[in-house]
Amino acid sequence: MANKLSDADRDAALKRLTGWRYEPDGPAIRKVFKFKGFSEAFGFMAQVALAAQKADHHPDWSNSYNTVSITLSTHTAGGVTEKDIALAEAIEKIAG
Amino acid sequence: MANKLSDADRDAALKRLTGWRYEPDGPAIRKVFKFKGFSEAFGFMAQVALAAQKADHHPDWSNSYNTVSITLSTHTAGGVTEKDIALAEAIEKIAG
Repeated sequence: MANKLSDADRDAALKRLTGWRYEPDGPAIRKVFKFKGFSEAFGFMAQVALAAQKADHHPDWSNSYNTVSITLSTHTAGGVTEKDIALAEAIEKIAG
Repeated sequence: MANKLSDADRDAALKRLTGWRYEPDGPAIRKVFKFKGFSEAFGFMAQVALAAQKADHHPDWSNSYNTVSITLSTHTAGGVTEKDIALAEAIEKIAG
């Protein structure tokens, strides 16, 4: 089972993840992605869905036309774990 | 261009759409769908995305594991129009 990261480990990981921010209210990490239109946004979501399924770790996310907002948290650990960082890294590769 | 429905027309349409509710704050119509798991939820979203693209009318929606929340509104009309009712009907067929 994934353990909640220390503040220092989490912040170090976030430095490598452009645009991802820590949200203390989650606690979670979050990023908003913008695309050219709905088709591009949903194409991105489909790829993220496959990555999430492979990782057996799923985002809380929303979409409005060309915008996708992704929040990652490990509910069973009550915060941000290595699983969230790994999924964020996978999402960055997809978006990249 | 789609015009905002009268309250009476909107309420009559909602009577035929099980589980959809009017949200005055949008103003919009909204329904929450529950599935067996993430795979089923995202499979549903993929079908809704295609229907939305075909209609050139797009939902504001969110997903958390097995739950999909869909909000429909016609921003250019400032409320609920026939386009929202038609997309809700298409979504019901997909969910059905």
